[in-house]
Order: sequence, then C-alpha cells, then structure tokens
Amino acid sequence: MNEQKGEFAFIDWIRKRARTDADNITLGPGDDMAIVNLAAEAGCLLTVDALLEGTHFDLATDSLQDVGRKALAVSLSDVAAMAALPLAALAWVSLPDHADMDFAKAIYRGLQSCAEKFNCPIVGGDVTSWPSGKGKLALGTAVIAQEAGIKAVRRSGAKTGDIICVTGSLGGSRLGKHLTFQPRVQEARMLAKAAPIHAMIDISDGLSSDLRHICTESRVAAEVRAADVPVSPAAEEFAKSTGRPPLEHALNDGEDFELLFTIAEDDLHRLPDLSDFGASVQNIGRITEGRGMKLLMPDGTSEPLEPAGWEHPLGARG
Amino acid sequence: MNEQKGEFAFIDWIRKRARTDADNITLGPGDDMAIVNLAAEAGCLLTVDALLEGTHFDLATDSLQDVGRKALAVSLSDVAAMAALPLAALAWVSLPDHADMDFAKAIYRGLQSCAEKFNCPIVGGDVTSWPSGKGKLALGTAVIAQEAGIKAVRRSGAKTGDIICVTGSLGGSRLGKHLTFQPRVQEARMLAKAAPIHAMIDISDGLSSDLRHICTESRVAAEVRAADVPVSPAAEEFAKSTGRPPLEHALNDGEDFELLFTIAEDDLHRLPDLSDFGASVQNIGRITEGRGMKLLMPDGTSEPLEPAGWEHPLGARG
Repeated sequence: MNEQKGEFAFIDWIRKRARTDADNITLGPGDDMAIVNLAAEAGCLLTVDALLEGTHFDLATDSLQDVGRKALAVSLSDVAAMAALPLAALAWVSLPDHADMDFAKAIYRGLQSCAEKFNCPIVGGDVTSWPSGKGKLALGTAVIAQEAGIKAVRRSGAKTGDIICVTGSLGGSRLGKHLTFQPRVQEARMLAKAAPIHAMIDISDGLSSDLRHICTESRVAAEVRAADVPVSPAAEEFAKSTGRPPLEHALNDGEDFELLFTIAEDDLHRLPDLSDFGASVQNIGRITEGRGMKLLMPDGTSEPLEPAGWEHPLGARG
Repeated sequence: MNEQKGEFAFIDWIRKRARTDADNITLGPGDDMAIVNLAAEAGCLLTVDALLEGTHFDLATDSLQDVGRKALAVSLSDVAAMAALPLAALAWVSLPDHADMDFAKAIYRGLQSCAEKFNCPIVGGDVTSWPSGKGKLALGTAVIAQEAGIKAVRRSGAKTGDIICVTGSLGGSRLGKHLTFQPRVQEARMLAKAAPIHAMIDISDGLSSDLRHICTESRVAAEVRAADVPVSPAAEEFAKSTGRPPLEHALNDGEDFELLFTIAEDDLHRLPDLSDFGASVQNIGRITEGRGMKLLMPDGTSEPLEPAGWEHPLGARG
C-alpha cells in the first residue's frame, strides 16, 4: 500500500500474482488484450456473467473472497454445462467508492483461488469504480474454453425417450451453496466421455426453468417424478422458514449449479460413479413427445410443472 | 411485449435479431456458451470492459442506444490497439429495477449497430438486474479477436529513437466524443500493414497516462513537443468552462480512444493517409533512453510530463 496506491497499482499487484506461465498463454494481464493460443481446429467457447451486490451476494454476510470465487465459478459452471475445457478468464470489477486496496485484493484472491483450482488463469480484466456515494459492487468474468476430446454438449439435443438426470441435490442454495458450490467441470467431462450426453445445462435459474430451456431448445416435453427429485438438506431447512414444501425449493430455487442432462436409457449404466466429487447422478424423469412439462406425483396423479425460477420482470410496467 | 415479458422474452427477442450467420460462428446466443471458430494457428485475443452509469455515461443526457454502442466500441478500441481483427462479442447488462423491455431493447440496438459496423457479431451475454430501488445501469462487453496477417502490437515494443504518433485530435471528449468516437480498428490495421508499429495503445486514460504505460512496459522514456500535440476543438471549448489550458485537456482527458503508437523514424513516410477516416497521424515526440516523460515547450524549456488521467484512488483511505 504505502506509496503505491490507485487502480494502476492494483493492476501491478495483480500482474505480479498472475499465473500465466501455461504454454497456451502468450500474453497475460497488462496490455490492451490478452493473447491465448488454442489447439488448431478446435471450437472456441465463450461465456460472460455478472454478479451484483444484493442480487447475487450480500456483503453483510458474504466475504469478498467468496464473492470473487463465485464470480469465476458461475462462468465455469457454464463451461461444465457444455462439457468443455476452460482455458482462461478475464475478470471485471466495478467498485463502490469506499473500496480500498484491501477490498480489491480480497476479491482478486477469491478469483485466483478458483482460477488455480480449475486451471483457468486470469489473463486480463477491467477495474472501474462508481461515482462517489453511488453504485454497489458488481463483478464478473468472461471465460474462454475449448472443445477437448468431447464435442460441446448443447441444450438442444434432447430426444424423446431420453432419461433426465441431475447431479447432486437441489434447493435452498441461498443458505450457502450459492456461494460455495463447485462448478461441475470435471464431472461433466467424465459423464460426457462415458456416454453420449444428448443435452445439458447447469441449474442456475432453477430445475423447472432450466428443464424448460432444454425442452424448448430440443422441441420436446418432459415428465419429472416428484419422488425422485433429490431434495437437499438445505431445501428442507429453508422450507421451515418459508412455509413452502421442500420439493418446491428443489424444483424452483436457483443457483444450485448442478448439472441437468438427458441421455439414452440404454446408456444409463455407463455413467460413472461421481461419489469422489460428493455427488451422485439421479434419474428424475423422462423426455416425452409434445410440449410442456409434467410433475408425476407418488399417488399416480400429475400436475403441470411450470418454470418458476426468478427472472427480471422486464416490461412488467408496459 | 403483451404476453411475452421478462428476461427470457428479452433473450428470445435478441436471438431473433442476432446476426450470427457468419461462417466462423458455430453457436450464437441461447445456450450456456457461444462457439466461435478461429483460424488454425492464430493467436486469440481477449478483452473485457465495463461501463457504469455516472462514471462512463449519464442517462440524463446520453441515449440508451448511444450507451449500448459505446459499450462495444470501447472494447473494439482495445482490439484496434493491438491491430487485431474482431471476431465476436459477448455483452452483459445489469439493469436498474425500473428498466422495462424498451429500455433493454434500446441498449441492445446500440450494441447491435456497432457490432454490424465492425463485423463483430454479439454471440452471447448475460442479463441481470439490481434489487428493487438499488443499483444503477452497468454494462459491458467481452470481445474475442484474432491476429490476422499482422502480429498483435503490444505496449512493450517501443525503442529508443522511435517517433511517437497519435491519430486524430485530443481533449474534451466529455463534450461528446466519449460517446460517439469510432474505434480505430481499420486505421490501426492499415498503419500496421504499412510499417512495423513498435508499440501501440488506445488513449482511454489520457495521453499522459497512456504514454506512461508504453514507457513503463517498454522500459524507455519519452519527450513530447507541446506545440505538436493535436488539441481538439472540444478541448478548446471545454477549457473555457474549466479555466485550464486546452493543452492540459489534450494531455490528460481520457476517452479520446485515438491511437498512440511508436514507429522507427525511417518508416514514418510509409504511414498511410487516414483522411478518409477523418483522422491524420501527428508526430508529437520521440522515445528516449532512461525513465520518465518530458514536455518540451515552444520556448525551449521543458517540464516533467506527469500522468494525470483519472484513476480510482484505491487505498486512499489506507
């Protein structure tokens, strides 16, 4: 700190810590753009995400380091959803005016811990700040990834008759998992290497919304067996305070960042054991013909499954 | 609008307008990641930028379409600074809670106009929103570009004896140019094809700060002739309200997004005429040995040239 203050000093501090000695990083932080080398003939995958104070984290309870970690983890979860291999990340952070160097460093340390764990170096970024007294912390990452031995898995490949699977358990992520989840990058690649995954998405909006995305993109319908949805202990816990059934939380809460995918029934037995990753794969239903989604109840009845994850109500005033 | 409301409806609206029919775009908006194909063996360049309400634009005076346009133009100016060829962009926007569909569409139209002009399709992004009553508009883009026939020009290649050049004229950008500037993508490539550009940067922080970046990265010093700095009419105009000399604005105001580069003196005559782009190339000084920057005055005296562009005073409290 001492003499070295300000945004450029922060960028200098970052550059000293940047782990960009990988063979495929030609130019790391500090120029107008970073330069990354890709394997020839490979598809290059891109994603960008933004996290906002009050929407995606709460600085009253969440540490800056955890917030930084989440920013990259959210983008890596998109990489997982395509079964791709992350290569490099860019990070941007928009600081409230009260932020000092320690504030910025804590965020970077969180980003860096995730970058190291997933071998996805931070090769550049942008540091900006809000005018005095206005604006809250916003940050995000863009990640570049590569198809590596596995063709990218899209949302649009689900076929009638496919089995619908999820990893892990769902619901109540706001009690902690939304911040501490592990993006399922390795798990997704293990699954996709073991058997053809027809369609995949990460559960960020909520199971009901994200399954709808797969159905819409694949032009199919879905049936989910209520009894087989893996309800997390956090969903049970959270239900006590909301008064809503735990299943509802498992179906609709967002930010679980588990994998939701479809696969031919004959390939189910080929799926690997993910217990080393603290996860199991659960068969929760089936892709069917037509449109729409159904929830099959244990008593033999069924009801419509409506996407109920949160979305910004753009145009609600219109 | 009518029935179709909300974030997913906005994303559907975007997808219908996405111009992603270029050969090198394998997968556009609507999945977890976009997929772009690069020429084999080419360096892949990446940048990300953020624009914040109150810092980089003012919604009291600036149209949403212009703000959207600026978001992409700022990243394309980084592409210009490397003399690279833009390939594709991702856009993220963080909406205040009062934003409706028309608000979001206006931003997208601005992004799209810039994307079309520079043949840099928007292949994906992220739409988020601030909690009720909190947070202001933030947005940005990540751009992927490619070395195409020209090796990427870095900040670090300036050599003692080089001539320092700028395009266009400088200062007073906040009177309008900060919003309407044209990223010098084509101009940079014309320059770099005509002669070896040793170092280049776009003037975003201000000439004094950005020249310092080149000096620091290249481990050289610089002398700038005050009489040769191209002071813009906007700098003259702005100086009337600030009471500071127009030259000071030309040296220190940010967001001109002109090119600042160094070149061997013998190559100066090879530089192309940029008048079709409304710009000329101005020789403003010379790279010298040592450290630091000097401003040579018309009366033969000199004074230190200190970087005086704005930066966030991180740690000023510490």
